[in-house]
Amino acid sequence: MKNYSIAKSRRLRSTPYTSRIEKQGVTAYTVYNHMLLPAAFGSIEESCSHLKKNVQIWDVAAERQVEISGPDSAKLVQLMTCRDLSKSKIGRCYYCPIIDENGNLVNDPVILKLAEDKWWVSIADSDVIFFAKGLASGNNFEVKIFEPNVDIIAIQGPKSFGLMEKIFGKKITELKFFGFDYFDFKGAKHLIARSGWSKQGGYEVYVENTSSGQDLYDHLFKIGVEFNVKPGCPNLIERIESGLLSYGNDFDNQDNPFECGFEKYVNLESDVVFLGKEKLKKIKSDGIKRKLMGVHIETNEISLTSSANIMNNDGNLIGDLRSACYSPHFKKVIGIAMINEPFCKVSVTGKVEIDGKNIVLKVCELPFI
Amino acid sequence: MKNYSIAKSRRLRSTPYTSRIEKQGVTAYTVYNHMLLPAAFGSIEESCSHLKKNVQIWDVAAERQVEISGPDSAKLVQLMTCRDLSKSKIGRCYYCPIIDENGNLVNDPVILKLAEDKWWVSIADSDVIFFAKGLASGNNFEVKIFEPNVDIIAIQGPKSFGLMEKIFGKKITELKFFGFDYFDFKGAKHLIARSGWSKQGGYEVYVENTSSGQDLYDHLFKIGVEFNVKPGCPNLIERIESGLLSYGNDFDNQDNPFECGFEKYVNLESDVVFLGKEKLKKIKSDGIKRKLMGVHIETNEISLTSSANIMNNDGNLIGDLRSACYSPHFKKVIGIAMINEPFCKVSVTGKVEIDGKNIVLKVCELPFI
Repeated sequence: MKNYSIAKSRRLRSTPYTSRIEKQGVTAYTVYNHMLLPAAFGSIEESCSHLKKNVQIWDVAAERQVEISGPDSAKLVQLMTCRDLSKSKIGRCYYCPIIDENGNLVNDPVILKLAEDKWWVSIADSDVIFFAKGLASGNNFEVKIFEPNVDIIAIQGPKSFGLMEKIFGKKITELKFFGFDYFDFKGAKHLIARSGWSKQGGYEVYVENTSSGQDLYDHLFKIGVEFNVKPGCPNLIERIESGLLSYGNDFDNQDNPFECGFEKYVNLESDVVFLGKEKLKKIKSDGIKRKLMGVHIETNEISLTSSANIMNNDGNLIGDLRSACYSPHFKKVIGIAMINEPFCKVSVTGKVEIDGKNIVLKVCELPFI
Repeated sequence: MKNYSIAKSRRLRSTPYTSRIEKQGVTAYTVYNHMLLPAAFGSIEESCSHLKKNVQIWDVAAERQVEISGPDSAKLVQLMTCRDLSKSKIGRCYYCPIIDENGNLVNDPVILKLAEDKWWVSIADSDVIFFAKGLASGNNFEVKIFEPNVDIIAIQGPKSFGLMEKIFGKKITELKFFGFDYFDFKGAKHLIARSGWSKQGGYEVYVENTSSGQDLYDHLFKIGVEFNVKPGCPNLIERIESGLLSYGNDFDNQDNPFECGFEKYVNLESDVVFLGKEKLKKIKSDGIKRKLMGVHIETNEISLTSSANIMNNDGNLIGDLRSACYSPHFKKVIGIAMINEPFCKVSVTGKVEIDGKNIVLKVCELPFI
């Protein structure tokens, strides 16, 4: 596929680490929350292989925060998500589908409970801040909503634990998955969560003190030599293999959480109040008509830039392929597809047109690995 | 400046015209409303010069629509904008700042009144759909809100009138600026407005019938040979010279409409109800502390990728440069900057650091031409 340049401007915001990653050899960007998100440092296959064995430092400042605070903040946060947050605890992260009035998805952030009346909604790629502002205004909630200056550095990969222990001490290895706490780096306090957009383990540093964060970024590379540290970014191959879904790629505002396999985050039995609750009850009782599934595709190359139709052997449309990549692990292309009933079952076969050729595929469960 | 590739994916949506513009030589993309927006076909200076004399066809499908319909639709649309729409007419376009609870800008769309109870909000780069959904839900408005399949083709430049007359007949030349009507192309009806994101004149075709729109796109090139038609896109130079502001570049959710020179679209004396009205009254009575101004910069080259600090001759920060380009017309770099009081006055001088050098600049009015 031909390469096209990205036309940079203030509107596609740079991050505090952009000049660093450009020196380190970033080759491609995507845009996420109106901000540059690195998409490749050369080969994504090599980067995937490195990530699975070592440790990488990622500029994921594009994971923006919506800070919601004030007396009605818990009510507003709950109104936006179908996950019951009534028993949520300070110091924990919660993966929360955000739902609109139709029961469809608006975003799938991780929500951090900073205090009983202060939350960070760590968003995927859509302007949740304006949804929150609209809801707050319409409901006369007493809240403050803004985007704080938080620019996340992710430390991902199996050696992230050793690297982070060397800097922050043993305490950081005791953080539970999706727990967060505050850690000191040369006199500055940083919120660090055990989380990240890979299944290889690691941390995310929610940098509020930009200058200290930049120092930390440099320090991670300096001290990380023994861990074979490299710059990286959310990796297309690793995230598809791991079934980490991406808002805008695998699902969007046309899809509901049941279709996306988010059942365990939809708490319809609880008495909490959230948008789209009645719609979701109806969708659940009616049953879904399609579902996100994995597909193995019998080819070695793909560059998917939009949905691709999936046909069954009778030539009928049975779904659409939404993300795909060559997986060195499976030695073929794998992808994530929305497949219609009754075809969203393991081992169903179909075809997808790639570069004018019909390629055979087989449906499987997510995640792949 | 080094070029970086854009990593395409379903999340950065292609348009119905993407395959066409790629054959026609698009070289760079930006991302706008989660969609690919062409940013260059080779030299933007040559393209600017061509646009000012001829006619160009632009893939501006990234100007997405938020359709708001239903009994409370007029109330919701008015709630979002500080412009008084109480006397708005069907068949007209209205440039409308969208305002949040703080009196700050959320977007600056053109709003099309399709019927008394049906509107298209033709948005700049932020998810106005979720702001509208939040407000509608919180206020219990009876409305339907969704993003219709509308993919705009713009026909821009002084020869656009001749080209469009050849296809649609004399009636299209009688459309008034910011008026719209429906025109037939080979049996399909298209909404066409006399509007567009240049000051060179032209039209925008709001394509709902994708296949007919693709035919029209091809037809415009076929029949446009005598008008010296070329593919193009919103042009950085032309839009800065013309003072066409860009949400995300020149202003954002940190700025209010008075700072951006939108006074004539802020109707505080009317009795219509809109968000942030009291805040805007206070801002107006207090007076603004900074303003968007033009700047002439004594250099011939710039590639601005984020805000750049502007200092006065005493070394104090007096503003930030937000957009800039080399203008062949002025034979120097010109830009749009937010300048603090009391420096936001014509002929004030300052300095901006570009590539490590301090370059002299002088403040001027907008637009430049």
